[in-house]
Amino acid sequence: MITSTSNTKIKFIRKLRTKKFRDENQLFYIEGPRIISEALDAKWNFDQVFYSQELINDHYSKQLLGKIMESGVDSYEVEKQVFESFSIKDGPKGLAAVLHQKTYEMNYLNRRPGLWVGLDRIQDPGNLGSIMRTLDSVGGSGIILIDQCTDPFDIAAVRGSMGAIFSLKIIKTNNNTFMQFLAGKDLPMIGTSDRADNDYLAIEYNKDMILLMGSEREGLSETLIEGCDKLVCIPMVGKSDSLNLAVATSICLYEIFNQNRKK
Amino acid sequence: MITSTSNTKIKFIRKLRTKKFRDENQLFYIEGPRIISEALDAKWNFDQVFYSQELINDHYSKQLLGKIMESGVDSYEVEKQVFESFSIKDGPKGLAAVLHQKTYEMNYLNRRPGLWVGLDRIQDPGNLGSIMRTLDSVGGSGIILIDQCTDPFDIAAVRGSMGAIFSLKIIKTNNNTFMQFLAGKDLPMIGTSDRADNDYLAIEYNKDMILLMGSEREGLSETLIEGCDKLVCIPMVGKSDSLNLAVATSICLYEIFNQNRKK
Repeated sequence: MITSTSNTKIKFIRKLRTKKFRDENQLFYIEGPRIISEALDAKWNFDQVFYSQELINDHYSKQLLGKIMESGVDSYEVEKQVFESFSIKDGPKGLAAVLHQKTYEMNYLNRRPGLWVGLDRIQDPGNLGSIMRTLDSVGGSGIILIDQCTDPFDIAAVRGSMGAIFSLKIIKTNNNTFMQFLAGKDLPMIGTSDRADNDYLAIEYNKDMILLMGSEREGLSETLIEGCDKLVCIPMVGKSDSLNLAVATSICLYEIFNQNRKK
Repeated sequence: MITSTSNTKIKFIRKLRTKKFRDENQLFYIEGPRIISEALDAKWNFDQVFYSQELINDHYSKQLLGKIMESGVDSYEVEKQVFESFSIKDGPKGLAAVLHQKTYEMNYLNRRPGLWVGLDRIQDPGNLGSIMRTLDSVGGSGIILIDQCTDPFDIAAVRGSMGAIFSLKIIKTNNNTFMQFLAGKDLPMIGTSDRADNDYLAIEYNKDMILLMGSEREGLSETLIEGCDKLVCIPMVGKSDSLNLAVATSICLYEIFNQNRKK
């Protein structure tokens, strides 16, 4: 049993809070029975599991821990206060895991059609999490992170996704590779812009397509705007001149979903 | 000029970060030229303004400060490091204000028809901010906070609202008063629930109505569910069984808005 908060493994977990350390190790941290169970069901690759018997007090978590141990994942028991030293929850339930990151290159898109969301330099991990959660709800395929985006493996993104991160595919790419990949492809790309002429309700959406959303501050880059087949805007009548990014993305995703489920 | 971070006024501002202190004083803190300008335009009641000449370096902020000082609001110059001691921004721009809270009782609704959002015990201030931002975008009247909700004057709610907090009305009430007020009134109330039979697209929305949303964890209370004229759900096909609260509210708000702008 690990009894010291300065144990090397425990220090390692805490360092996973920084993007740099996550990137270097290609790992990330998740906590709580529900999300761990989803990662397990979706067959994500576990690196290590940490648990505190003292904190685990429901039958579900006990069963889950049994299942994890049977699967052969390295599992370490830690003292309650050690668990609390790295926990990200208000009331820790005694189960945490370190997982291997899993992302894909742009050409993965050839293998999986459907609805994708391209995100251009978005900054807020909470927004990214919410977008993944909605995309999963409408049966989408995955997200494409273009250029420097916030980290999908950030705690706030993973938590905000409510497990959707495990069912979606995550592509990481840059502007050039993205545009080159799409050149000559018959895949509709619809972008949003406050300068767009089309009301988002006024156009028809294919079930295989990319919805392209720009960063919270600057919107879409000029190159990406030019690459879009159509640009749409969400009408607004209030004082605000924009919506929250996760909200705007979700409103468009539901319009795409609604059109296709009516067909 | 205030030069000490332990000055009474400065300590007071920092204490406004806690809900208890905000409630006791019926005040709240805002920062940055854009939001201050919106509060001023919407004629909210300023208690005090704090500025650091060293941090103000754009023409817009200088003009705004001039306008504030002309209006007769108590204004205090503070040293750069004093400003930074209470600032909530990464790059503080040297303008902050303390405002008087403004909320209404349930019967205010008689005076202002239109689209209202009722929120039952919601907990996340970021969600509340995003909901206000979307509600303003669809020309809504205001929000009704039922029972113990997160504070609309929390920094994250104010920031997330992007100024919408100043154009909407905020009603604070409890379950009983809310239900008694509605009894016998001809005001449609539509609630959302994952147990609902109606697809949110399948019903007609009046332009005067209350959209009722439940807490992040528990949804709507039984009493409120029974008080609804109709219950709707947002269809989902993924692994998630719910959407982010601000996202779900916004999807419903846009459906209501879309139906009414088409009329």
